[in-house]
Amino acid sequence: MALVVQKYGGTSVANAERICAIADKVSLARQAGDQIVVVVSAMSGETNRLISLAKEISARPAVRELDVLLSTGEQTTIALLCMAFEERGVASRSYTGTQAGILTDGMHNKARIMDIDTEGLRADLANGKVVVVAGFQGVDEDGNITTLGRGGSDTTAVALAAALKADECRIYTDVDGVYTTDPRVVPTARRMDRLTYEEMLEMASLGAKVLQIRSVEFASKYNVPLRVLSSFDEGNGTLITGEDESMYPKGTLEQAVISGVAFNRDEAQVTVQGVPDQPGIAYGILGPVADAGIEVDMIIQNVGADGATDFTFTVHRNDYDNAMEILRNIGNKLGAREVAGNDSIVKVSLVGVGMRSHAGIASKTFEVLAKESINIHMISTSEIKISVVIDEKYLELAVRALHKEFELEHTT
Amino acid sequence: MALVVQKYGGTSVANAERICAIADKVSLARQAGDQIVVVVSAMSGETNRLISLAKEISARPAVRELDVLLSTGEQTTIALLCMAFEERGVASRSYTGTQAGILTDGMHNKARIMDIDTEGLRADLANGKVVVVAGFQGVDEDGNITTLGRGGSDTTAVALAAALKADECRIYTDVDGVYTTDPRVVPTARRMDRLTYEEMLEMASLGAKVLQIRSVEFASKYNVPLRVLSSFDEGNGTLITGEDESMYPKGTLEQAVISGVAFNRDEAQVTVQGVPDQPGIAYGILGPVADAGIEVDMIIQNVGADGATDFTFTVHRNDYDNAMEILRNIGNKLGAREVAGNDSIVKVSLVGVGMRSHAGIASKTFEVLAKESINIHMISTSEIKISVVIDEKYLELAVRALHKEFELEHTT
Repeated sequence: MALVVQKYGGTSVANAERICAIADKVSLARQAGDQIVVVVSAMSGETNRLISLAKEISARPAVRELDVLLSTGEQTTIALLCMAFEERGVASRSYTGTQAGILTDGMHNKARIMDIDTEGLRADLANGKVVVVAGFQGVDEDGNITTLGRGGSDTTAVALAAALKADECRIYTDVDGVYTTDPRVVPTARRMDRLTYEEMLEMASLGAKVLQIRSVEFASKYNVPLRVLSSFDEGNGTLITGEDESMYPKGTLEQAVISGVAFNRDEAQVTVQGVPDQPGIAYGILGPVADAGIEVDMIIQNVGADGATDFTFTVHRNDYDNAMEILRNIGNKLGAREVAGNDSIVKVSLVGVGMRSHAGIASKTFEVLAKESINIHMISTSEIKISVVIDEKYLELAVRALHKEFELEHTT
Repeated sequence: MALVVQKYGGTSVANAERICAIADKVSLARQAGDQIVVVVSAMSGETNRLISLAKEISARPAVRELDVLLSTGEQTTIALLCMAFEERGVASRSYTGTQAGILTDGMHNKARIMDIDTEGLRADLANGKVVVVAGFQGVDEDGNITTLGRGGSDTTAVALAAALKADECRIYTDVDGVYTTDPRVVPTARRMDRLTYEEMLEMASLGAKVLQIRSVEFASKYNVPLRVLSSFDEGNGTLITGEDESMYPKGTLEQAVISGVAFNRDEAQVTVQGVPDQPGIAYGILGPVADAGIEVDMIIQNVGADGATDFTFTVHRNDYDNAMEILRNIGNKLGAREVAGNDSIVKVSLVGVGMRSHAGIASKTFEVLAKESINIHMISTSEIKISVVIDEKYLELAVRALHKEFELEHTT
């Protein structure tokens, strides 16, 4: 008998029909003997409807009251889902964030979970009930309703799985797992059976938007096995766990050295050329950028020559004009020869824990791109990834070539 | 400085504009120095929307979960109203039933309030905040969300006023007070400045549907001054309190002996003629009627003659056919001569605490009706009311004549 937390997002609970489909699905798993906690989001469209209501009253709604308002969305879903269970003769009980004892800090609209009092939930599970918990919401120590911000329902599911020491936390989405790369770019992209938290974090932050980074971090911290799978189709999805020997047997290049190829189309690069190679120059450049609220992704500074160096970083394409203007304004003061930029670039990354012990991966990557005559603007590496920045027009070519060369395709 | 509880129903909070209008109104009262607790219902239409959602999932939704669902309606309103206060720079705080500590029994969909923990509310009021409480909802001792059933928000308001020892509980509605009779029947009907709980109960149960009986009973029990007034217009409305000397000075007939003329169009009468005048006959007749779930209003049995008597009662017109069939079936067994009925009758009632000490009221009532040649089918009296059952076609004539004769008109 396994204890499983299942999380269903907004499109999975979009209407009565879908809610009933989930009730059917969970009922079957319950009959098979599993103990089940279901975490649900607001019905798709509901959160936007509530925000519109609030905006009619105030351009900047009071944050405490916005949480009181938004939390009604998931509360509606838990009630409807439990009605569907009752209709099927399956014992269940709904829990708001407050009722589930999901204690958070007091940061309205972006609260963090501090603790979960699982006593009531455990008693219901022991009595054979399906426990249905409102995602995205909690309560602070003064009894105020809080919400967890973006991706909050995933976080609720993982936190509950950790607190209940669940065997698995299943995140049901509109895709059937995590792929070696975007199937729209590489039709032979393969669904991965397993990958590690670290790999998932690199994949997620690099543009494979299946899971919220926050929930993966949380799962990693508490070692909660996380599975991404489809609400609508059958299938085992992708299991995300800590690293273990069995996953990546040491050996040849062929054996899962690389997990996937991620990419990000929204990048732009800014280069400050010929600045004095001296202490404080990096802060001199990035300080004003950070002060303007611009988030910086890659940062590269090469070894200088003749007392000067070039400093390059990437930003979201929306922030490009703003960043360029800031740099042009401070370029002279910094003693830069020139400020240059390019907003037609993309980032392509190879991710895989296997590459740690394989020095040959980097050179093979560069070889693949060279064969296709793709020029590399920037290179950045970490323990489990290699990222290159290339011209936008080469994105599909680069991703397909790398995906093929590292043998990530479907095996038939 | 007065402590005032204000309750606004669904049409008063129908949209953002109306919610903002309430915020303006309350802000003014707050500036004038009053401490204010606002109780709100769900926005009009919202409860029906939620029930429709539930019905899509289950013909008989689980009662516990229906409360979880319906309670989101008022929760939405409290959040929006507090946003409107914030927008106006008026400090406020919203409370769900759970947060307000409105402890009820566990009877889902029709819970009764057991206790209210007012500590948090008092602290907020002392700090100058407007306290906004979700009506209609509470929490049982196991932390389950409950709802109070029909008219629940009125009950919440009165209960809070009692617990906080408020100076007044104001129920804002779409009428500007309680009238001496229905202004649609008697255009010169007058808004009453004051009446007693008892009178209001008689008026309410007799068809003047301004306030729910339950909230008036509650107010009477805890002696909470209750004021009915319009959400949309200015005016002092009607104050409902316990009886005191100043209200009804003893003296002439002219001085407020009668408060109002109520009537009920939905009545039908059933008469069992010539049943044996012996113990158990009333139970023999009404037992089967009650068993069929039919509510009986007036019951009249006159002194018998020749060992037989006639027994008459009135029911809601919708139950007439059903009641007649039951009585026809048992009539023989009871030894009745005949079972007769009439579903074209109405009930007209004079209400007023003043009539206790005025024996002449009854005879004057009958005189007025006689002058208009209106035949009286049934008569029933209590300490503060006289009810007569007459033919439907005479309703307006009777109400207008009585209203005029007892001088209830506008005084210009």
